[in-house]
Amino acid sequence: MSPFDQLEPTALFKALESAKPTDALPELSALLDAVRFNADGLIPAIAQQHDTGEVLMMAWMNREALEETLRTQQVCYFSRSRQKLWRKGETSGQQQKLKSAALDCDGDTLLVQVEQTGPACHTGRRSCFYVSLSTEPPAITSEPLIDPKTLYGKKSP
Amino acid sequence: MSPFDQLEPTALFKALESAKPTDALPELSALLDAVRFNADGLIPAIAQQHDTGEVLMMAWMNREALEETLRTQQVCYFSRSRQKLWRKGETSGQQQKLKSAALDCDGDTLLVQVEQTGPACHTGRRSCFYVSLSTEPPAITSEPLIDPKTLYGKKSP
Repeated sequence: MSPFDQLEPTALFKALESAKPTDALPELSALLDAVRFNADGLIPAIAQQHDTGEVLMMAWMNREALEETLRTQQVCYFSRSRQKLWRKGETSGQQQKLKSAALDCDGDTLLVQVEQTGPACHTGRRSCFYVSLSTEPPAITSEPLIDPKTLYGKKSP
Repeated sequence: MSPFDQLEPTALFKALESAKPTDALPELSALLDAVRFNADGLIPAIAQQHDTGEVLMMAWMNREALEETLRTQQVCYFSRSRQKLWRKGETSGQQQKLKSAALDCDGDTLLVQVEQTGPACHTGRRSCFYVSLSTEPPAITSEPLIDPKTLYGKKSP
């Protein structure tokens, strides 16, 4: 039993702002009911390598992808271009094993800490964030670990 | 002069997938023209503490906010609730000094590395990601560094 159990989903994250680590929180299903998915039913999910802290990528999850991620401990996104679940690494083999997952203060963004096998990026780079705007002119900051042709067989990603 | 200068914005990020760190990239303004803002004119921006790697928050930027961030080296978002520029720390004093900024492979997400003064979260916590889904039941993983009443004077955030 949690003091937050009686709250409407819309009020839950507001109430959790003043919650403490020792407080009993609602069950996972109640928290998932309160997640603020956008009009397309999605939330942004940031993937970070758990030990080095490197931010690897950002993609989207619907509730089904989030539940599968938590159940299987393998990160699953929702592909907006293909409009279906995207089990990270299902084509490339470059999976993300879940280490931890946390929602933000207003329940509309997820951070997943992962163990990334090889490159996270479809270009073969470790991280998707490689187009630096901090120099003039801008610059590419990393090279592929693996040729994307190898990652995806003969076909283009 | 860059070999990427003649590309249409829609083709630029695709072409940059195979670019190398030694390649000359287009000027900043050309890259900003190619950023894939969403239907509301926004991109998600992930803020990470530059030295510890901690992911602090995710918010949104329009082109004006992104240009101001790069020009002033102080992170500026676009507040969706207030529908105006949100110069991080303008009320709370908890600013983010820009250390670096990078776009991802398809040009629709930004990662900013920052020097965060105090808490990034309006609840007074260092990071916004404090509602862990990795335990059953879920748990709060951090406490405020500063009482939010102190951060925002008498008024509620």
